[in-house]
Amino acid sequence: MENLTAGQFNLIYNAFSFAFATFAASTLFFWLGRGQVAAQYKTALTITGLVTFIAAYHYFRIFESWGEAFTFVDGALVATGTPFNDAYRYVDWLLTVPLLLVELILVMNLARSETITRATRLGLLAALMIVLGYPGEIATSAGERWLWGSLSMIPFLWIVYELFVGLSKSIAQQPEDARGLVNTARWVVVLSWAFYPVVFFAGAIGIEGAMASTIIQVGYTIADIVAKSVFGVLIYMIAVRKSGDLMSSSPRAVPAE
Amino acid sequence: MENLTAGQFNLIYNAFSFAFATFAASTLFFWLGRGQVAAQYKTALTITGLVTFIAAYHYFRIFESWGEAFTFVDGALVATGTPFNDAYRYVDWLLTVPLLLVELILVMNLARSETITRATRLGLLAALMIVLGYPGEIATSAGERWLWGSLSMIPFLWIVYELFVGLSKSIAQQPEDARGLVNTARWVVVLSWAFYPVVFFAGAIGIEGAMASTIIQVGYTIADIVAKSVFGVLIYMIAVRKSGDLMSSSPRAVPAE
Repeated sequence: MENLTAGQFNLIYNAFSFAFATFAASTLFFWLGRGQVAAQYKTALTITGLVTFIAAYHYFRIFESWGEAFTFVDGALVATGTPFNDAYRYVDWLLTVPLLLVELILVMNLARSETITRATRLGLLAALMIVLGYPGEIATSAGERWLWGSLSMIPFLWIVYELFVGLSKSIAQQPEDARGLVNTARWVVVLSWAFYPVVFFAGAIGIEGAMASTIIQVGYTIADIVAKSVFGVLIYMIAVRKSGDLMSSSPRAVPAE
Repeated sequence: MENLTAGQFNLIYNAFSFAFATFAASTLFFWLGRGQVAAQYKTALTITGLVTFIAAYHYFRIFESWGEAFTFVDGALVATGTPFNDAYRYVDWLLTVPLLLVELILVMNLARSETITRATRLGLLAALMIVLGYPGEIATSAGERWLWGSLSMIPFLWIVYELFVGLSKSIAQQPEDARGLVNTARWVVVLSWAFYPVVFFAGAIGIEGAMASTIIQVGYTIADIVAKSVFGVLIYMIAVRKSGDLMSSSPRAVPAE
């Protein structure tokens, strides 16, 4: 990252600040919205807000770390020698990625035993995916990167299978006006996650330099915002719609949107 | 900005601090007010508060960045060499301008499909307007500034068309005592936004120097306060009035102000 221009530095700096603001605002949105959904969906919104809260914390750290890694001397950008700590991302994902899948299961409001089984399975697979990816991220050889990256793809593909085959029947049983949103939500998970292995393996085939770093940092930031905030808004909309259905069948039950 | 006087520096410094205080206080006002409106208007007030929350964060950053860009040596103002990061404004607008339009749509309480269509369209147009403006803002030639500025005016004019033609019928269907406020709200949007292109094109015709910088920074600050806090108070008033109408038709339904 030594040859980063001031423009590239600033773009990344602003992207991190943008992400912090987005996640902090999203957290408040989800938690304020808890009052507007039926009791059985409140936990889903609590967790949706937790995911963006944890992400806000990590983006604050990432932003600070980025600011400490560079300085301006007479208007020119200079590395300070303090390394930029990219590992905050893995710490974040280890917490947030399992929780993301749990919020999707919770908002579906399945039978209790199915909720526990599916949330546990998806949560553990997600944690395993992150844990297996990390040794590849810090590996010094392309071979190790390929090895750990490939291992990490096993739980990833299993999660995709669970979402698109395992959950099919349960999605078909969702109320009609929520079904399309649940379907969109699982696609948002899979498509936003697809960016991470692309970046990971770009490192393994030797793509690097200032421009690659810029694309990676800004790309991770966009992928995180889609996977957490945009996904969270879908969870919120599903919860509000399903609460509205409840309300129309029992007039006093729930304040809707 | 090298020839800024201490008086100009202080005026801008105090304007930024004023804006932070205004936005932080506005946020608390809107969120505390959520308890006083009917269920269908709570999300509008949540988002109104989010807009000022995001603005408070960015004005805090702008204030800090301004303070780091200058220092006093023996009572004389000296630039430190750390550049003032004006880009926080664009980062802020990218989030807040779409949300501003969404709060207006939400407080109108239209049919669900119309809400989604209009909020999505206005939100995307607003984001596009900001994204197209940014390359012009950081451009080094007047030609590029004209190019991007002109492109950015296309979604701007489309938004004006949507507000004044697209929404006419829906505004006519608002309750009588809220109609005037909704009309005022759309005028506040358009008139407060008119300041931004004026500043933008002032840069393209070569107006610069310490006095121009002072007018720009203080002017942006005033325009932001009008577009977010003053506009937000109108949204709050609309929500309270419409909640009052609901209350009088079914006495137990809603706690109004």
